[in-house]
Amino acid sequence: MSAPFSTLAEFRAVLANAPGKNTEAQAGAEARNGQLTKPPGALGRLEDLAIWYASWRGTDRPEMKAPQVIIFAGNHGVCAQGVSAFPPEVTVQMVANFEHGGAAINQLSKAFGAKMDVHALDLDTPTADFTQAPAMTEEEVVAALQTGWNAVDPNADVLVTGEMGIGNTTSAAAVAAAVFGGEAGDWTGRGTGVDDAGLSRKTDVVARGLALHADAIKDPLQALRCLGGRELAAMAGAIAAARSCSIPVILDGFICSAAAASLHAAQDGALDHVVAGHLSAEGAHANILSNLGKDPLLSLGLRLGEGSGAALALGVLKGAIACHSGMATFAEAGVADG
Amino acid sequence: MSAPFSTLAEFRAVLANAPGKNTEAQAGAEARNGQLTKPPGALGRLEDLAIWYASWRGTDRPEMKAPQVIIFAGNHGVCAQGVSAFPPEVTVQMVANFEHGGAAINQLSKAFGAKMDVHALDLDTPTADFTQAPAMTEEEVVAALQTGWNAVDPNADVLVTGEMGIGNTTSAAAVAAAVFGGEAGDWTGRGTGVDDAGLSRKTDVVARGLALHADAIKDPLQALRCLGGRELAAMAGAIAAARSCSIPVILDGFICSAAAASLHAAQDGALDHVVAGHLSAEGAHANILSNLGKDPLLSLGLRLGEGSGAALALGVLKGAIACHSGMATFAEAGVADG
Repeated sequence: MSAPFSTLAEFRAVLANAPGKNTEAQAGAEARNGQLTKPPGALGRLEDLAIWYASWRGTDRPEMKAPQVIIFAGNHGVCAQGVSAFPPEVTVQMVANFEHGGAAINQLSKAFGAKMDVHALDLDTPTADFTQAPAMTEEEVVAALQTGWNAVDPNADVLVTGEMGIGNTTSAAAVAAAVFGGEAGDWTGRGTGVDDAGLSRKTDVVARGLALHADAIKDPLQALRCLGGRELAAMAGAIAAARSCSIPVILDGFICSAAAASLHAAQDGALDHVVAGHLSAEGAHANILSNLGKDPLLSLGLRLGEGSGAALALGVLKGAIACHSGMATFAEAGVADG
Repeated sequence: MSAPFSTLAEFRAVLANAPGKNTEAQAGAEARNGQLTKPPGALGRLEDLAIWYASWRGTDRPEMKAPQVIIFAGNHGVCAQGVSAFPPEVTVQMVANFEHGGAAINQLSKAFGAKMDVHALDLDTPTADFTQAPAMTEEEVVAALQTGWNAVDPNADVLVTGEMGIGNTTSAAAVAAAVFGGEAGDWTGRGTGVDDAGLSRKTDVVARGLALHADAIKDPLQALRCLGGRELAAMAGAIAAARSCSIPVILDGFICSAAAASLHAAQDGALDHVVAGHLSAEGAHANILSNLGKDPLLSLGLRLGEGSGAALALGVLKGAIACHSGMATFAEAGVADG
């Protein structure tokens, strides 16, 4: 799809004018749910999930046949501050691993029948170190948002956005702190394995970033520009594009959720078409989800990124839709409904 | 498979002589897990799940290609005491719904590629009302255990056991109380929708059953006989049969877990090849799982039975195995491992 914006102001307008759910399809799905051969409410959250999905797909008896998983990769200037246990070269190496089919997300995409695409965003040109300057210029953040937007297949019927980027838990913590407030230390964690000294450095780096950009980041999209990364902006662009096509989205973990949070803070209801796939083991993820009002579908201690937790949640969504659209009604089955 | 027992004493011996896991395969799977292209532990419980599965399948790089779902249905004499909001006829109607493909478990089995079998156990002859007499004679409980055992396909590579039986939350509560102790009210809940008066009646009925059979039910298999039902015994038989073929099992909700609890109490380690698929909304399920030392994979408020929560957890297991057996190692992918 071709992105309908070329400035942050235009992207903001796209968010403001995003389409809503289909309330008629929702009412139809609720009515159907009440007639299925099970006691009322006995499928728990699967029932809500199927009705939510129906409301965005615009039909009371939806199918899920074309999941899309998109992985965005970016490199981060803030790595110069020693915030990660891994060198930035690992981002490139993991992109190759995605392309050759060897990563966790490849296996999960295949297991749940999802098409998987990988977009590496200017890995040779890391964002600026946000303790020194804004991570991205307006042109750069808009280009990343556009990459994300354009990556979405309009024929997909559910979207998972994932990421890879050494140092990006630091960027995500900074974006979350800017968007939701609180201290830097409320939002930093061990990422893929920093030690105590690394965590302390990371918290200091986030605090310095928040202080340096204090004025600009009162605006959530400026927070994404000044503190985020290209893969975070691309995920935000993809989530917004999915909304424009009524494609429901499953959030992955900490970094994906921080990117999504910038949309939520920029525009009320911007994540109504989004569910939280899982609760990450990265400590502050629960705090982001709670601020977003999203209850995760899974909680299995994953902290990998790559869209892995969201891809796993595709199975739950698949089951929910299969029950909703495939079950017989009491009348069809000749079962007494109590 | 042909059941290798024709008395409860012989079944007890089968449990005592059950094969253990393959520790060589487990060590191989642990080693492989440490070499996969992800930070250590980043796939959380998926890693433990894949290693556990490998240890029972006897290979360090297992596949899951042949899931089997078996639904057992039974009717309960204790329904005469007014413990359910539904009439016993619904058991027969739901069996027909399973056979015609209209129930939730049909959709979930299809969604996760499982073969599904249904066994209706003497629905025209409910068990005895356990407030008056033992629910089953020894012949009856052994026949039900054999039905469960014989229903397992030795070529399956994972088993889900589910059930249908109006009144069976009452039987399950009584079995759990007998096996784990405590008051009747600690184990009773609203099942598929009894009101306050119904719940109070149900608790009284369980207490009377516990009192009437107090001596016999000190033995867990006698508790299954005196208080359980044919579908509970069949699930227990199927779980034991799966162990004999090194087929891992996913537990469903309250009733399935109560049936499994009788095996656990009869023989230490009898459920080592078993994981808990989900936490049911039926209040005392958490208490059973905690007594079994099993942490559920999912917690989505389901309370349907039919194996539905366990079938949904097939997706989680599928994802775990796909990652474990399909991912590249650091060496294969040329990724630096930190």
